[in-house]
This record gives sequence, C-alpha cells and structure tokens, in this order.
Amino acid sequence: MENKIGIVNIGTYIPDARVSNFDRKEEFEIDDTFITEKIGIRSVARKAKDEETSDLCVKAFQNLVEKQDLNLEEVEVAIVVTQNPDYNLPHTASLVHKKLGLSEHVASFDISLGCSGFVYGLSVIESFMNQHGMKKGLLFTADPYSKILNPKDKNTSLLFGDAGAVTLIGEKPVFRSGNSTFGTIGEGYGELICTEDLYMNGRSIFNFAARYVPKDVEKVLSKNNLTKEEIDLFIFHQGSKYICDTLIRRIGLDESKVPFDAANYGNTVSSSIPIILEKYLEDSKETPSDKTLICGFGVGLSWASTILHRNY
Amino acid sequence: MENKIGIVNIGTYIPDARVSNFDRKEEFEIDDTFITEKIGIRSVARKAKDEETSDLCVKAFQNLVEKQDLNLEEVEVAIVVTQNPDYNLPHTASLVHKKLGLSEHVASFDISLGCSGFVYGLSVIESFMNQHGMKKGLLFTADPYSKILNPKDKNTSLLFGDAGAVTLIGEKPVFRSGNSTFGTIGEGYGELICTEDLYMNGRSIFNFAARYVPKDVEKVLSKNNLTKEEIDLFIFHQGSKYICDTLIRRIGLDESKVPFDAANYGNTVSSSIPIILEKYLEDSKETPSDKTLICGFGVGLSWASTILHRNY
Repeated sequence: MENKIGIVNIGTYIPDARVSNFDRKEEFEIDDTFITEKIGIRSVARKAKDEETSDLCVKAFQNLVEKQDLNLEEVEVAIVVTQNPDYNLPHTASLVHKKLGLSEHVASFDISLGCSGFVYGLSVIESFMNQHGMKKGLLFTADPYSKILNPKDKNTSLLFGDAGAVTLIGEKPVFRSGNSTFGTIGEGYGELICTEDLYMNGRSIFNFAARYVPKDVEKVLSKNNLTKEEIDLFIFHQGSKYICDTLIRRIGLDESKVPFDAANYGNTVSSSIPIILEKYLEDSKETPSDKTLICGFGVGLSWASTILHRNY
Repeated sequence: MENKIGIVNIGTYIPDARVSNFDRKEEFEIDDTFITEKIGIRSVARKAKDEETSDLCVKAFQNLVEKQDLNLEEVEVAIVVTQNPDYNLPHTASLVHKKLGLSEHVASFDISLGCSGFVYGLSVIESFMNQHGMKKGLLFTADPYSKILNPKDKNTSLLFGDAGAVTLIGEKPVFRSGNSTFGTIGEGYGELICTEDLYMNGRSIFNFAARYVPKDVEKVLSKNNLTKEEIDLFIFHQGSKYICDTLIRRIGLDESKVPFDAANYGNTVSSSIPIILEKYLEDSKETPSDKTLICGFGVGLSWASTILHRNY
C-alpha cells in the first residue's frame, strides 16, 4: 500500500470579495439568529464578473505551487469538476490546460457533478490513474453559482459562495482513499436545478441529506470495517450549519470532530470538502485526522463518501 | 484476463427524421461531388424538438434491452458523455437514472467531452468499475448538436447528426480494452466552440486531425506491442469522409479496414464509434475484428485511442 497514489497536496482560491448576509437582513426578512445559527453563513464569497470558472482553477493552482514543487511536464491528467463551465463546449479542462501550459500528452475532461463532486472526482481520477499507471494528476473543483443564481432568491443567494480548489494526486500521498460509496436518486432531479436561473427546494434537499447521509455514513464505515468512534474527523459537504448540526445529532457524533467552516465564504459546492481538508494536510496532535470520513451530497440527487487514511 | 470487464453489448438510437444535403445544394452552393466525396454525408439525422438528450439515451437503452437480458437492479454505474446536457445542473445521468428507474445505489455522473468522448468514457467507466469491483455499468453517449447549431451555418449544419448510444460494460465481454492513449491541445479550444451558437473552424480541425491522429495511432500501437498490419479494423471518429480518406492515406491503411458509415446520419460526435462498433459485435469471418483500433478526436482539442481485443 505504500506506493498507492492519493492526495499529496491541495491548493485553494476563495475570492476576496464578500456579500454580507447581515447587510441583507431587511431585504430577506431574516434576523441574526437565522444567519449565525440556522444557515451559519455570515457572508458569501463572490468572484469578479469577468473571472471565469477556469480562472478559479488557475488561481487555486497558483496557491498549490506556492506550497508544492511541481514539474508541470509530469502532470498526466487534469480533470475539472463543474456544472458551471466557461462554455458547454469545449470542456473547461481544455481552457485550464491552455492557461497552465500543460503538455500535449495530458488526458483532460470535465465531470458534471455538484456537491458530491469532490468525492466522486477523487475516485474517478485515482481509478483512472491506477488503470493507466499515471503518477501525477490534478483534480480541480470550481462551481461558481453566482453565475446562475438570482441575487434576490433567498433560498440560494444567502448560501452559495464562489471558490475553486485543486487537489494534487500522486505517490507518497498524505491521504490514501479507502472504499467508497455512491448513490443517486434521479427522482429528485428537479429539487436543485438550473432552468433559467438556479432553483432550490431547500426543505427537500435538507430532508434528503438528513435521511440519506446517516445511512451512507453507516455504509461507508461498514465497507471499511470501521466504527464511527474510530474516525477522527468527519468532513461533510457544507450545505449549511443546520444540516451539519442535524447530521451530528442524528449520527451521534462528537461535534468537535465535525468542522463547520463555511461561515465566511458560503457553500462552495464541490470545493467545500477540499477547502477544509487543506487545513488538515499537516498532522497535528490537537486535531487528529488519521482517519477522515468525507461525504458530499446534493444536486442530482447524488451522494458519495469515502475514508481518507493518513499516510504521512 | 478472462474475467476482465469490457464491452458486452451496445444499443443505439438514430432518429428517423433526416435533413438531406442534396436539398440544400443551392442554399450552400455545393455540388454532388462535395456531398458524396468530400464530406461524404448525404443526410443528417435530426431529433424531434422536444426530444431531450436524456431521451436519446433512453431510446438507445430500449434498443439494448431488445438484444440483451439485463437485470436493472444489477447496474452499478451509469455515465453520460455529453456537452449538450438537458440542463447544466443536474447532470443528465440523473435524468437518465430517473427515466430508466435505476436503483439508489447506482453511481452516476456526466463526462463533458465531444468527439473523443467514447474512448475516454470507456476508459473512465472501466477503471472506475475495476477500482470498485463493479460488474455491470452503462456508458451513454448522446450529444445532439442540432440543439446548438445554426441551420444556416455551412461548416456545421451539413455535418452533424443527432444520435445516442449505450454501451453495456461487464464480465464475459465481447471486447476487452488494451492500453490507451490520451491527449489535449488546450491552445485550440476556440476552434470548435459554442458561445452563442456552434462555431467550427473546419480547416483547423481537419489539420489537427490529419497531423495528430497518425501520430497517436503509432503511439497506441506501440503501447500495445502491435503493428498496424496486425489490426483488423480501424474505427475512426466519423468527422467527414475526407478526414477518414486522409487518415487512410497518411497512415497507409487498407481502406477495406476503415469503415466510413456516417453517409446517412452524419457526424454524431461521441456516438460515432459505438454506432459502428455495434455492427461488429457478432464475429464474422468476412469482416474480422479480432483486434480493433478505435480513435476519437475533436473539440478541446482532444483525442484518445485504444485497442479492443475480441474475447468471444
């Protein structure tokens, strides 16, 4: 197992610009408790209007290479997880390929998934690399909902923030993946959908997560022969504080093991998990993360979970 | 190798409706030779206006189950390759999941790729299934360009046809994949792009294919320790008759080994290869296909090749 590939490093980009939810209390008829306790999101990050999805990827990459020596020539695959591409065709990975100056031999494509996209993408890139004997790959997540949401829509405008992340996959990883679980309820495809603009049935998405995530946590633990007590850290997709609190209660978790981190940037869709995971790359005795359970859930309806084992 | 998964069967759907290019000779100032010899496409298939991308997938699936016993409960993964999804979010695989009534435990997502999408998709689904010990998967391709092309645009309107295909991946396959090659030239992202509507720089795409496909054929042969003489069948993406003829000449192939099949339905993007491959599922001494080289190339710019080995 020592040579198995996995997560080597993570670069992130959260735009500086913020829209404060406290400034919108009157417009949306909400109070401080709603902001701090229910959604838990005080402000949402907003990209510049001319910043494209591929630019979020490039900026996350710049953050990565500040921390990590990386020979671009060695990159063999680049995947972008998004449902807000620069164009529908070509795929965004091709624009990222150009902007980073990657080699001609690089395999690249986009995966269309939302909040479950990081866990799925991690599994797709790792299995693709294993199959083809590849040693270095880049998994980008960037899904700026500000491109499609109506700023006057309370159900989405207060929640979703823009960000991007890139996860370097390679040898001598910090985290190796265990067995994964995946699921889909196509019947719920209309609960979070973009027709003209973004529509979310918040209650329905909440009920889905509150019902299905606990079952999936149980399933992924069992598939990895682990108990919840053996897990150091649970990184759930950051839909809202309320959903994280509900999962803590329903699964019966120690809340110190379940970070809610999105207060000052919002729900960043497929980037929510890597943005938190980045903070745990360095081992620390105060916040152990030898065994980390990650779980993404949302649009589709779709969900996925896996266990990350610390390797270094 | 006997238990390795691979292509078990293929279902296809080409809409009945056709637009004849002979009826458009005056409008586009073209003659019969241009139609029959240069593009080689006499008519293009057109889906009904209210037929969605997910419907093309469902109709291809109906064709599959006419030929193949399939217990829906056993399907573990469903992937849709498209750049013309029903919606940008959710992914089209989630609508296909609903329409087919697939199980909750099915992993599903879309891959955004164009004419290289079948070869990539095949590799993604096979590696994903191998990694997770999955035994049955569905790879859909459906990219109806009629949704985005301007009927008055000579560069695209005469070429692209609508279709869908589904490839069943499982045990005891008819075809097993060999080693694959992949490539990207992000610099060429603007040569085939949809901004307001579809734009294609035909000459540039042609030059790319004429230059890069022969090199990639050489590379994939070498990666599989094969010579071109050992290959029974070459299935190239059906961009146009002219590109297929050019590849035959430049690579030095026997033209009887290189089908051009798109005359009566057009360039169906990622469905071009499975539509032809379906015709070779049954072994036949007149048209051997023990070793088949498949190569897709186009939007991105992107390309991929592999060798299919007959197993049964």
